[in-house]
Formats: sequence, C-alpha cells, structure tokens
Amino acid sequence: MPKQTAAHRIVLAAHPAGEPVDTDFRLETYELAEPGPGQMLLRTIYLSLDPYMRGRMNATRSYAPSVPLGGTMVGEVIAQVVQSRLEGFRPGDYVLAHCGWTTHALSDGNGVHRVDPALAPIETRLGVLGMPGFTAFAGLREIGQPRSGETVVVAAASGPVGSLVGQLAQRAGARAVGIAGGAEKCAYVRDELGFDAVIDHRAPGMARALAEACPEGVDVYFENVGGAVWQAVFPLLNTFARVPVCGVIADYNGTTANAGDLTVPALMRAVLSKRLTLRGFINYDLEQHRTAFLQELPPIVRDGSIRYAQDIVDGLENAPRAFMSMLKGGNFGKLLIRVSQPQ
Amino acid sequence: MPKQTAAHRIVLAAHPAGEPVDTDFRLETYELAEPGPGQMLLRTIYLSLDPYMRGRMNATRSYAPSVPLGGTMVGEVIAQVVQSRLEGFRPGDYVLAHCGWTTHALSDGNGVHRVDPALAPIETRLGVLGMPGFTAFAGLREIGQPRSGETVVVAAASGPVGSLVGQLAQRAGARAVGIAGGAEKCAYVRDELGFDAVIDHRAPGMARALAEACPEGVDVYFENVGGAVWQAVFPLLNTFARVPVCGVIADYNGTTANAGDLTVPALMRAVLSKRLTLRGFINYDLEQHRTAFLQELPPIVRDGSIRYAQDIVDGLENAPRAFMSMLKGGNFGKLLIRVSQPQ
Repeated sequence: MPKQTAAHRIVLAAHPAGEPVDTDFRLETYELAEPGPGQMLLRTIYLSLDPYMRGRMNATRSYAPSVPLGGTMVGEVIAQVVQSRLEGFRPGDYVLAHCGWTTHALSDGNGVHRVDPALAPIETRLGVLGMPGFTAFAGLREIGQPRSGETVVVAAASGPVGSLVGQLAQRAGARAVGIAGGAEKCAYVRDELGFDAVIDHRAPGMARALAEACPEGVDVYFENVGGAVWQAVFPLLNTFARVPVCGVIADYNGTTANAGDLTVPALMRAVLSKRLTLRGFINYDLEQHRTAFLQELPPIVRDGSIRYAQDIVDGLENAPRAFMSMLKGGNFGKLLIRVSQPQ
Repeated sequence: MPKQTAAHRIVLAAHPAGEPVDTDFRLETYELAEPGPGQMLLRTIYLSLDPYMRGRMNATRSYAPSVPLGGTMVGEVIAQVVQSRLEGFRPGDYVLAHCGWTTHALSDGNGVHRVDPALAPIETRLGVLGMPGFTAFAGLREIGQPRSGETVVVAAASGPVGSLVGQLAQRAGARAVGIAGGAEKCAYVRDELGFDAVIDHRAPGMARALAEACPEGVDVYFENVGGAVWQAVFPLLNTFARVPVCGVIADYNGTTANAGDLTVPALMRAVLSKRLTLRGFINYDLEQHRTAFLQELPPIVRDGSIRYAQDIVDGLENAPRAFMSMLKGGNFGKLLIRVSQPQ
C-alpha cells in the first residue's frame, strides 16, 4: 500500500448569511496519496487571506465561481515541494500555487510559478510583489492615472493594496490621503508610509476630516472598501476624477442599505456633471501591465523605497478567525497564515 | 440717433422647483443698437432646444454656469447675417452661434461658425451634424466602443442622439436595441431607423420586454435618460459593459427618489463584479473625435444612409412650452424652434 500523507484543510460548511461565522467553516483531516507520474506533493508555508474570498463563499457567483459546500476554501499559497515526479521541480523548491486553505496538495504544475527566495522574502509574492501589489499598480496605471499635483485617496491604507496605492501615487507626484481604522494604523500610514494625510474612519466626523484633508478635492479615489467611505469621498470628487473599483469589502456581506445619503440618481447626475469615470477591475483583467510591474516594483521593494506591513498568524486552524477579523479591519498589513515552517 | 432693431428674447424668470412651469420663463421685447465696428447683427432662423438646458435653469451650477435670473436662456442657433461690420461676414450668410433664445443678436464673431447651405440642410447643423450628432458619435467612439456581435441599448431612441447611436452601432456590426415612448415613436425606430428591436417604455413590463430583446445581455448602454430605464438596463449589463453617460434627463428635475430597487452598494458591487465602466462626458470633452466626425458623418447623412427626424415648432414665443414638453418626451426627433424664415 502506498504511503499516505495526513493533511488538513478548511472547507466551506455553510454559505454565510451576512457576516461569516465560525460554523461556516470546517477543519477536516484527510489523506493524500503519494504523487503519481507528472505530479508533486506541496506543503503550504504561507496561505494568503484576502477580502475577495468573502465573495466566493456566497451561493451565487460573483466574478468567479463560488466555493461549493464541502469544498476547500480557495486561496493562493507559497508552498515548498516535498516530493516530486514532475520535471523541473525538486524537493525544497518554493512555488506560488492556488492550493487553497490546506496544509498539503498534489499538483501537476498547472498554474504554479517558481519563487526565488534570493530575490525577496518569499511571502512578499503574496503581498506587495503579488496579487495585492499588482492590483494597486495596475489599477493606478490603467484607470487612476494620477498626475503631479493631484490628490489620490485610498481606504484600507495600511493594507497591502492601499499602502502601495498611496506610495505609488506619491512617486507620480500626487498627494496621498489615506483612510484607516484606529490610531495605530493611522500612525503607521502617516509616519511609516509617509502619506500626506490620514483619516481615522473610526473617529467621529470622518467625512468632514476627509474634506479638510483634501482642500483641492479628490482626483483619484481608489475604491477598495465601499460603504460609508465611498459616500464620504463621493462629494469631494473633482471634475474628471477617476475611480478604479477593485473592492467593496464593506458591501460584501450583502447589506443593501445605503451607508449615507447618496442615491443612484444623484450618483448618475454627478457622473455626468463631473464627467467621472467609475471602472471595476480584477487584477487579472489588466495583464498588459504585468511586465512593467515585474520590472519596476522589485527593485524599489528591495531597496526599501516601498514600505509594506505583514500580519502573520500561525496555524491553518486559525485561518477562519483571522479571515473574519480581517473583514472587520482587525488585521494590520497583509494577512498571512503561516501554515508550516520552511525546511 | 442710430436705427434700432426691435427684438424678442426669453429670459429665466424663476429657478424651477422640479418640473419647469410657464412662469419660470418670460418673453421680453428689447431693442438692439446697430452693429458697431467689428460687429454684426444676426437674425435667428432656428433655435435648438436640448435637454441640457434644464440644468442651466437651476440656481446651483451643473457642469456649466447657471442662467442668471433675468438672463436670456442659453442655446445654439442657426442665424443669418442681417448687417455686418465684421470682416468675412456678409448679409445673407448663415452661421452657427450661441445666441440663446432670442430673435436677434449682436456678435463680434466669437464662437461663430460658418454654415454652408449647399452641404446639407442648415438645420442639420443643430442635430445630426451638430452637437447631438457629435455627442452620439464621440461617446460611442471614445467610451462605448461597440464591437461586432455586441448589443447596444439606447433610450430616447427616436431623438437626435439616440437615433444616431443605434445606427452607428449597427454600422459597427452590433445589435441596436432602442427604447422610446409610445407606439408612434417605436414604429419609427423599428421601421424607419431599422433598429433590431425597440421597447416602449410607456407600456407595462418594460424591464421584462427589454430583457427579452437582449437575450445575450447588454454590452453598451448609452445613457441619456436615467431614471427607470437605467434601473431596467442595469441588471442586463454584461461583464466589461461600457456605459457612456451623456444625460440623465429623467433625473434633471431634481427628484432624488430611486426609480427602482437599485441601491448604491448594489451598483458598486456590480461595477466590481462585472468590471463595468461608467463614464460621464459632455460633447466638448471629446474634441479629439471632431475631425473623424466631420469626415465620416456628412457623406452618410447626405446619401440617406443615416436617417434622422426633426420636430419643428414655429415662433420663439412657443419655445418654453415646446421645451417643457420635450422634457416629458413630447417631441419627436430633434426639437427646433423656427424663429424666422431664411431670406
């Protein structure tokens, strides 16, 4: 009988009604066969937790298929090859793969990318040099197009997308105004990331503070949160403002109530009278910017010009709680689960 | 004492509260001096009435300044030169000018364009070959970008913008679906303009009829009406749909009530998940397409490939009533006031 590997995974136990709860997830133990010809066994080192996963938990598909009930939660990981019968991959190699919330996986190499640990810390391939970083870079390059002297606003400014949006906006000569939750995050955005201004959305009078921080209005609002922040930014948008929309985390839980006074007719009147551009995108829609991203970002990450924060939680079993907390802003920087240690 | 010309004009008497009413306008008689050096006296032949004028009647500016109380209502006209002390303009010449709702005007030639009556009927410079035509052309070229096999929906389909949008979409190989009010307009859109389908928004079940007319969804919605039509089109938008927004006539009167179930959070979720592009524009934002418009449109208007309808009302004094009726869809084709006869 072939040797088997005991593995753990987290599956979707129920479609959440609103905010996810513990019982929407289930930790399972299962066994993996040895890799067959053309396969390799991967052990997860880091699992990336990202807001888009909330959409995959719904029964109805968003831009991508839902996770089926009983299916392993989807996600990108940095993994290490344990055993390989696949040409080009040897035990100890690091890879980026879509294994999901699991300790181990068998792979035929499809959709797997090599990760060179000498270029940058391996986990940055899940953050500033990975999907979140590319989301920020490509959304600004394609849609936001900040120009010198303009004002760029981004929420979740201490997070992996927002922190890069602000720093890239400043490198384009624009003012970066961040929105973050709580004094600690705000201090980080202002003092460590060097944003020109930061607003605490948990403090009273957020809309007024934002208006004061943007005395010449807002030219680019990088939308990654939705909800009350969107409604506070909207009246400040300048003529010809651009709004790349890559996330509406505040609206993911399915509440349809307005978080402010903005109505659809008023929104449409402003789209016309201010000639706004609202455009939704998913990072992989903008592959035409991948080459520039891979050329421009790694050097300025390595030399410390671009700052980033990581929030690392140990143990796959803690992924559901960390994920639920992230949806409420409980993380600080790119949220990663350290599933195992590199060997 | 110099000879004076008795003239008439219509001024803004009051800012409308909601729908404009008779008393928001006032017909005045005034006298114009003879043209001084570098001036010419113009007599209006056709005055163009357009939905954007509703926005100018408000106390608060939209994308352009409001008409002040007591000020002449703004508007484009085709006029004939009566007397000229301005080089290059001779009595009898036709010009396009921003004289407003008036029978006569003095002009120094600023913003005045010559109109050659041999190229096309002079009034087409206010319609299919003028601002409305350019709005349709440039909005499709810059934002809508219809491709072969796609579905393009436009409301006010018998109007000067909508009728051209559908015909240009078909020339690009797309299906054109029009929305119009009443059986007569619908028959015109289907039988004379040759749209692939037409929906009567006054008939019950508009949203369902529209869904049936767009079995493969909507790739381009050319937004020129807002209100209930927007809410009916919205759920049908396909992934990567483009929405050029050039008018929201149903929302101009300032009602902020939703004409349907669509909320701002739901709209933003769809912008993301379907990667929609909503972009407002005013025709003069897109001057980069003017040369192509002037090259491509006149030949196909002259040879009858492009159809258009005009709704001509005689007498400046009838302009307010015709305008108010237009806002409710009472016109049929490009609405023009024939202020005087060519001489």
